[in-house]
Amino acid sequence: MLKVAICGASGYAGAELLRLLSGHPGVQVAAVTSERSSGKNPAALFPHLSKYGENLFFEPLEPAILLEKADFFFMALPHAASQPAVALLFKEGKKVVDLSADYRIKDPAVYEEWYKVEHKHRDVLKKAVYGLPELHRAKIKKASLVANPGCYPTGAILGIYPALKSGLASPEGIIVDSKSGASGAGRQSDVRFSFCEVNEGFKAYSVAAHRHTPEIEQETSQAAKKQVTINFTPHLLPVNRGILSTIYLKAAKKLTTGSAISLYEKAYRDEPFVRVLGADELPNINAVKGTNRCDIGLRFDARTGTLIVITAIDNLVKGAAGQAIHNMNLMMGFPEDTALSTLAAFP
Amino acid sequence: MLKVAICGASGYAGAELLRLLSGHPGVQVAAVTSERSSGKNPAALFPHLSKYGENLFFEPLEPAILLEKADFFFMALPHAASQPAVALLFKEGKKVVDLSADYRIKDPAVYEEWYKVEHKHRDVLKKAVYGLPELHRAKIKKASLVANPGCYPTGAILGIYPALKSGLASPEGIIVDSKSGASGAGRQSDVRFSFCEVNEGFKAYSVAAHRHTPEIEQETSQAAKKQVTINFTPHLLPVNRGILSTIYLKAAKKLTTGSAISLYEKAYRDEPFVRVLGADELPNINAVKGTNRCDIGLRFDARTGTLIVITAIDNLVKGAAGQAIHNMNLMMGFPEDTALSTLAAFP
Amino acid sequence: MLKVAICGASGYAGAELLRLLSGHPGVQVAAVTSERSSGKNPAALFPHLSKYGENLFFEPLEPAILLEKADFFFMALPHAASQPAVALLFKEGKKVVDLSADYRIKDPAVYEEWYKVEHKHRDVLKKAVYGLPELHRAKIKKASLVANPGCYPTGAILGIYPALKSGLASPEGIIVDSKSGASGAGRQSDVRFSFCEVNEGFKAYSVAAHRHTPEIEQETSQAAKKQVTINFTPHLLPVNRGILSTIYLKAAKKLTTGSAISLYEKAYRDEPFVRVLGADELPNINAVKGTNRCDIGLRFDARTGTLIVITAIDNLVKGAAGQAIHNMNLMMGFPEDTALSTLAAFP
Amino acid sequence: MLKVAICGASGYAGAELLRLLSGHPGVQVAAVTSERSSGKNPAALFPHLSKYGENLFFEPLEPAILLEKADFFFMALPHAASQPAVALLFKEGKKVVDLSADYRIKDPAVYEEWYKVEHKHRDVLKKAVYGLPELHRAKIKKASLVANPGCYPTGAILGIYPALKSGLASPEGIIVDSKSGASGAGRQSDVRFSFCEVNEGFKAYSVAAHRHTPEIEQETSQAAKKQVTINFTPHLLPVNRGILSTIYLKAAKKLTTGSAISLYEKAYRDEPFVRVLGADELPNINAVKGTNRCDIGLRFDARTGTLIVITAIDNLVKGAAGQAIHNMNLMMGFPEDTALSTLAAFP
Repeated sequence: MLKVAICGASGYAGAELLRLLSGHPGVQVAAVTSERSSGKNPAALFPHLSKYGENLFFEPLEPAILLEKADFFFMALPHAASQPAVALLFKEGKKVVDLSADYRIKDPAVYEEWYKVEHKHRDVLKKAVYGLPELHRAKIKKASLVANPGCYPTGAILGIYPALKSGLASPEGIIVDSKSGASGAGRQSDVRFSFCEVNEGFKAYSVAAHRHTPEIEQETSQAAKKQVTINFTPHLLPVNRGILSTIYLKAAKKLTTGSAISLYEKAYRDEPFVRVLGADELPNINAVKGTNRCDIGLRFDARTGTLIVITAIDNLVKGAAGQAIHNMNLMMGFPEDTALSTLAAFP
Repeated sequence: MLKVAICGASGYAGAELLRLLSGHPGVQVAAVTSERSSGKNPAALFPHLSKYGENLFFEPLEPAILLEKADFFFMALPHAASQPAVALLFKEGKKVVDLSADYRIKDPAVYEEWYKVEHKHRDVLKKAVYGLPELHRAKIKKASLVANPGCYPTGAILGIYPALKSGLASPEGIIVDSKSGASGAGRQSDVRFSFCEVNEGFKAYSVAAHRHTPEIEQETSQAAKKQVTINFTPHLLPVNRGILSTIYLKAAKKLTTGSAISLYEKAYRDEPFVRVLGADELPNINAVKGTNRCDIGLRFDARTGTLIVITAIDNLVKGAAGQAIHNMNLMMGFPEDTALSTLAAFP
Repeated sequence: MLKVAICGASGYAGAELLRLLSGHPGVQVAAVTSERSSGKNPAALFPHLSKYGENLFFEPLEPAILLEKADFFFMALPHAASQPAVALLFKEGKKVVDLSADYRIKDPAVYEEWYKVEHKHRDVLKKAVYGLPELHRAKIKKASLVANPGCYPTGAILGIYPALKSGLASPEGIIVDSKSGASGAGRQSDVRFSFCEVNEGFKAYSVAAHRHTPEIEQETSQAAKKQVTINFTPHLLPVNRGILSTIYLKAAKKLTTGSAISLYEKAYRDEPFVRVLGADELPNINAVKGTNRCDIGLRFDARTGTLIVITAIDNLVKGAAGQAIHNMNLMMGFPEDTALSTLAAFP
Repeated sequence: MLKVAICGASGYAGAELLRLLSGHPGVQVAAVTSERSSGKNPAALFPHLSKYGENLFFEPLEPAILLEKADFFFMALPHAASQPAVALLFKEGKKVVDLSADYRIKDPAVYEEWYKVEHKHRDVLKKAVYGLPELHRAKIKKASLVANPGCYPTGAILGIYPALKSGLASPEGIIVDSKSGASGAGRQSDVRFSFCEVNEGFKAYSVAAHRHTPEIEQETSQAAKKQVTINFTPHLLPVNRGILSTIYLKAAKKLTTGSAISLYEKAYRDEPFVRVLGADELPNINAVKGTNRCDIGLRFDARTGTLIVITAIDNLVKGAAGQAIHNMNLMMGFPEDTALSTLAAFP
């Protein structure tokens, strides 16, 4: 049994790791940390986790103790706070999946520009692998430190990658219009995320300024083999879970809806968690909620020469905890879909 | 033009007073107070109130200044804080509608037992009129201080009163099972009222312990001419507005659904804001949202001898701001439905 | 591998059976029937079921064919239609769990009064076991035909049973005030269940007339050892899943909240799917959604002598498909929680 | 008093006309038509309209009778059905606001291509004025027939017009990503719009194929003085009301967020129903629900040279009934905001 610790486990991503890992036959959750909820049982915050019973309690993040307790670490700390904690664990030889943004951006200058904080562990950053299995599976299998992608970038990159890689679409003028459920903001005591403010509402936020932008650009630039600059606009949906991204690409080759679908089907043929939809279907977040799946729909607008790619994921699963477990499965040699095969509870 | 001040105006009840008063031809909002939001325009907190433009700003509650500015006061302060502020205004000869609980309970001992705070203005308390117009219209017209009813008591009392007054139902064993939208908790930065915790959820709270219980008992005891003890259970609905109360009464006379409906129709025949539904209809909160209306449906369960009375109100309007304006209209001689005649925006 | 057929599989209960059975290692879904959707793949109606791929298609309900294909039958047909289909399968020696109401009510006269249809298979009815495992586990294990309980009765009976069985509460004057998510109405093309009519709404329906009433009375009468008559009021919640029932019982013995909790804890000590909450917690439907769990909270109101029991279930799981699989596990000797151990995807 | 008839009044747009007209001092609703609901009172379908009491009943659409009853007509019939009915009324000298699509598209060939139906009243079409008051106020005032804009086009055109008119943005490559509440689909008994399918879901639909596309192109082409081709993608939001459109325009001049805001403020300076937001605010549908307001927010993304314009309207008010009443006010000489000045009931 692999002994696992979850650091920063009192938020929604931490709770989701506990939910999913409860179905993993090769893993034992050996420690969960939370400064704020130290001493409490996970079920005290999350009644749906009562299965963990009286055997697991939040504890403060004390490396010396955790190094003894666990061999694999899921880090769900705020960015900046994650930097030193991850570096320490990495240097002690532990395997780590970091759910924060700290080790995602390869260029420290870009990280520092968008996150307004210095990167103090550039040596460790160089060893980190960007944990999108569909793009970097081979590297992830050999990695000790995996930077788990952001929720928005996961859906955006999976939607853009095949079109740029194949030259089907131009790397210029890409627009990503994303809509996320409220759990993307975390477990918050902020009036802006209170029920009455979000319910029956809908708005854009962080327009032309969201920190997930450089992450999308980094990965899609690899596909395009040139620097890609993207306009990314996130919106807040009055639902608990799910991100739908509507992506607008300019066609660079002759294409049809059918040929675009074929190309994406080929690109993701062997992927257990990507489903490319046919010409009679479009993605809906309610078909992927609770699952690690990414659904992709495509349409070509011949009138304007625009390829529209629409992706749907669950921000807490494929966009966070599920992808983190997928990465762990790859790093530790478990079958890829272990603990990740349950279906969406629709409706 | 009546100059009106709203004290504690930065919450949902305050915002709702501003919304409704914007349509009142005889009133000018002369001052709004909020310690926390002092210096801000209402539109900074509530974009839907942009109509108030740059002419109105939250200010701290300073009696000397407010006494100059306004002649009529809506007090939307927390309980206990309302006690001295209301007493001062009352003694200065101002007309006041108090939306807090401080002047609702006639017996200070009962108030102190449920609210765990001393009542220091018992002389003023004696002068306060309980502001449920359907029960106390004549007294309200002559009052200088009206204690605006709580949201739950409004729907509960209107549902129970005719049955007890007429002797149709027994005053023993009354059960009030109420379900309220989330705005009833106020404008909160509390994780328990965050979107993800409330949405797709439903629960009871304050079971057998909610402070609105003695208020319901006080008014229904008047109808029964004996002390009534009620079991009251509130629940949190994942909607913004609305309270539906399902009330269980034991029949004390022979009755049918039809005869009960007739009795209620007679009781509320002249009431502009109460609608008694026929035997083919049941109340829904979505028919009253945004309005000052109380819809009442009735069914007699002959198998168990139970009269079921169901009432629906908007907790922010008939349960707070709308009823407060109704009281002001009565106190100041405006037509009763001034600023209160718009229909629900369904759906 | 047990070959299973689901008859009437194109509704939400059928889809939920498919979802849950996809995680059952001992079962193969050999056939799904639907007249309306005949020829279609489940994924055509339910994209979240795409895992079933191209190997399963809805077919018309033709007994001769189904008898060849499967050995265990889940029947999710409308009441009345289920009568002959179940009788035929039973007489052919198949094992059956019937999710309709047709074989729940032991007294055919009561069934006929409430359902307005004759019971034509009284011999088979006599052999049916009411499938609430917490009450009838031993009989279910030996049964060939199990009548799966209604969604409301499941939560209501589990809430009432220990109090009546132990004599803690009186069998007189019991009130069950239940609130159900919209999936309880099935997959409907009815304007009354359209999004705009349900969202931001809340109402009671079928007041003093709901067909689940005699089912609750039948089972609780067994506990009380006398005929129990109950007032049952269902309400429609604007959520997808979940039933919360608030049950009002008159205390028949001296009790406290603590002693009531202790009694329920003992009653359900060995039950894998019932969780009795402590005095600091109350049930919320969002902690059980997607799961087979029933959460039970208790409070004693000393002022009125009322024991308030609150139960929360997922109407599609513990209230339908999950309980059906639980019954199958018991009938076929699988471990009880097979395919039923996943946790709620909260939020 | 102007005698008004509403044809096709049993849907949400019809109900909204009744709601808003109930506050119009110069109008009397003389007739409402509905084939399906003939003989019923509006309150039978819409309890929130009980104010109309027993004086108004749906009747079949019989021109001879209606011509006697009313002088002003709101036509809320399905497209194609509206063609002859509007033509007849127009030729009889009545004033008409048509809420269908039949008289919006100036070029009958374009209408026929998108709506797949012949336009048989081209002479009348020539006399119709496109009823977006912000663009065509002078013509509307003199018109007898006004084609009320579609819900999506209203928000899209108001967002695009000033940028194209001023040359701030290029007419090439415009993308309109719109998200609409479920009432946009009308009052439907279609399983796809049932509560469980829409709630907690989100999807795009009619991608690159929605019939509102040519309407947006027609009006923005006037601003650009050349043919504009637009990519328009609608999405279905799990809310009752509201459309938020996120519009991506390529800058054609040097600009900043501040300069774009200034230009839009000037463009809409005298408009009673358009509010251009400052650089610290972004539109939210919950601030405009129930109102005739259009909120517009702007951001310039200097990294990509993209001007992002975000507009929020209530699809049933500014996107349908409210704008229709605004047009009537203009046509009949009422003050523009008559019956349209109430504020949003937030939350």
